[in-house]
Amino acid sequence: MTTKQQKRTDISTLGEFGLIERLTADLKTLRSTTMYGVGDDAAVLDPGGQMILISTDLLLEGIHFSLVYTPLKHLGYKSVVVNLSDIYAMNAEPTQVTVSIGVSSRFCLEDLEEFYNGIKLACQSYNVDLVGGDTSSSLTGLNISVTVIGTALKEDLVFRKGASEHDLICVSGDLGGAYMGLQLLERERKLFEEEMAAQKSLEGHEFIIARQLKPEARGDIIKLFKEHDIKPTAMIDLSDGLSSDLLHITRACGLGCHIYADKIPIADATRQMAEEFKIEPLIAALNGGEDYELLFTIAPDDYEKVQAIQDVRIIGHMTHTSNGNKLMAQDGTAVNLQAQGWKHME
Amino acid sequence: MTTKQQKRTDISTLGEFGLIERLTADLKTLRSTTMYGVGDDAAVLDPGGQMILISTDLLLEGIHFSLVYTPLKHLGYKSVVVNLSDIYAMNAEPTQVTVSIGVSSRFCLEDLEEFYNGIKLACQSYNVDLVGGDTSSSLTGLNISVTVIGTALKEDLVFRKGASEHDLICVSGDLGGAYMGLQLLERERKLFEEEMAAQKSLEGHEFIIARQLKPEARGDIIKLFKEHDIKPTAMIDLSDGLSSDLLHITRACGLGCHIYADKIPIADATRQMAEEFKIEPLIAALNGGEDYELLFTIAPDDYEKVQAIQDVRIIGHMTHTSNGNKLMAQDGTAVNLQAQGWKHME
Repeated sequence: MTTKQQKRTDISTLGEFGLIERLTADLKTLRSTTMYGVGDDAAVLDPGGQMILISTDLLLEGIHFSLVYTPLKHLGYKSVVVNLSDIYAMNAEPTQVTVSIGVSSRFCLEDLEEFYNGIKLACQSYNVDLVGGDTSSSLTGLNISVTVIGTALKEDLVFRKGASEHDLICVSGDLGGAYMGLQLLERERKLFEEEMAAQKSLEGHEFIIARQLKPEARGDIIKLFKEHDIKPTAMIDLSDGLSSDLLHITRACGLGCHIYADKIPIADATRQMAEEFKIEPLIAALNGGEDYELLFTIAPDDYEKVQAIQDVRIIGHMTHTSNGNKLMAQDGTAVNLQAQGWKHME
Repeated sequence: MTTKQQKRTDISTLGEFGLIERLTADLKTLRSTTMYGVGDDAAVLDPGGQMILISTDLLLEGIHFSLVYTPLKHLGYKSVVVNLSDIYAMNAEPTQVTVSIGVSSRFCLEDLEEFYNGIKLACQSYNVDLVGGDTSSSLTGLNISVTVIGTALKEDLVFRKGASEHDLICVSGDLGGAYMGLQLLERERKLFEEEMAAQKSLEGHEFIIARQLKPEARGDIIKLFKEHDIKPTAMIDLSDGLSSDLLHITRACGLGCHIYADKIPIADATRQMAEEFKIEPLIAALNGGEDYELLFTIAPDDYEKVQAIQDVRIIGHMTHTSNGNKLMAQDGTAVNLQAQGWKHME
């Protein structure tokens, strides 16, 4: 493989999205049932009847999670939830999951039972069925692959690309908590490894730790959309961070955006921990990933309807692309939103 | 995780199938669209209209493949094909795949392009669409997860469990070739690593090497079933070896089986290499995996129809469970068929 004299391009020069685009650039659709392939939160298939959605994630120990501070049950739960979130982000309903694992010999049956207990708990909580998977050994660590299937009526589907100029940009919940939880857990891990000291400084920080270790997918928001007769014009779930994910939407729509610093929801616990780490809380909210909140746009006419949903904030609006992608500070200054690199690749 | 005082059961004591059974024992179906979950080649969903099938595999470097002798393009091709095989084994048609990869920093863009070229080639050959996936880095090696979606009419589906006593046991193609190809490639790898010598003794062994590195899924047989108006009563694809996979069928059906040594198809090239390795060719056919041929049963009345398919052999018949699972030698002696352990776990 490496003996041939050939060009060798470092993957990190492309970033994750550049890499996917490059590898899938020349794909042609062969099947009439393939409605939408690579490029959104989930693929959409139309086999007749309801639309079928499919999304998949690969989670690798040491890259996506550390077992030093992640209980296996939480890991199982989170592995399912982050995939369900992709289906909700299409305004669809997850219905089934498959889970494959590769485990090294340091794991015992009881470890895997803990992991599966988390998976089953997530399946029960979100009313989805575990329908398959694959189990093998691995040379090192725990490898997890989760695929989720969902359904939706065609007219209910929301893609990343549907927003128009002047549409309002909304976000559910609060942002940056999962990132600050990760910072805290990583700090404690290092202290623990250096001093073999017990982890005590986690006490009192349950909120941000739960945001990191046991995130929830916002199926409740999707339900509220139906109840309030709201159909977002574009939507994505916040896995990479507000900046990166909002830029996915603006790019897909061929538009720009303005969001307002003082409108971005940040929990007090997140703010406090950010200050302790000397991180600007807004930066944690913009660039911290894994909140699994929904970021979506609505037509201006739906302003009243969305105001009625308690856990949703309007944080800005879509603009003509010539206005750029900007964060407006309270003092009236504006900065350009920037996508984060492929954090796992650096 | 390992600090608690708790029971620790070594996974290898359960084997792959024991492990899956243990982990999924208490699963209850929540969704009305889940027709069939864990326990066959693929899960079956019924969202209205056609049945949707889903199957998934996790392939890990050093466990499932060695890049010393596996070209990345072949690996991409095989990763897709082995999943398609699971859908064909349900008498269904694969329609879409998703591919996720985790890659360490030793891989460059050109490596991944080679890998994706193999994936795309398989997609074209089998008329399926690549509709999604996930790309991330890994700490070590190449991690691949493939999920395949298929469709079938409900009345066409074939499970492992449908055979009756006296049904004929059939197999497509020939067996043991992939296993002997692997033995040859592994021998050359060891020679290469010990002596840094060029690989020359692979010449003339293209057949078994291709069986290992570039297997094909038997969609052609599924088509022939339709043309000849055959519906197998039970079916599985040969990934673990004839013994193990036939025992999956007999167990699912609550039956026994008799197969005949002189009926088991083994190619001359496979036989020759087995003799070179001082392996009984029949043992390679029974216990060697990865042939991705179809093993199926038909009603005795379909004998004539199946005789008309050139690349299918009748190798035995289903019996009452009290007759056991037996291989009948030419001299009239019988030996019990035995499942192989979890080879990746030992």
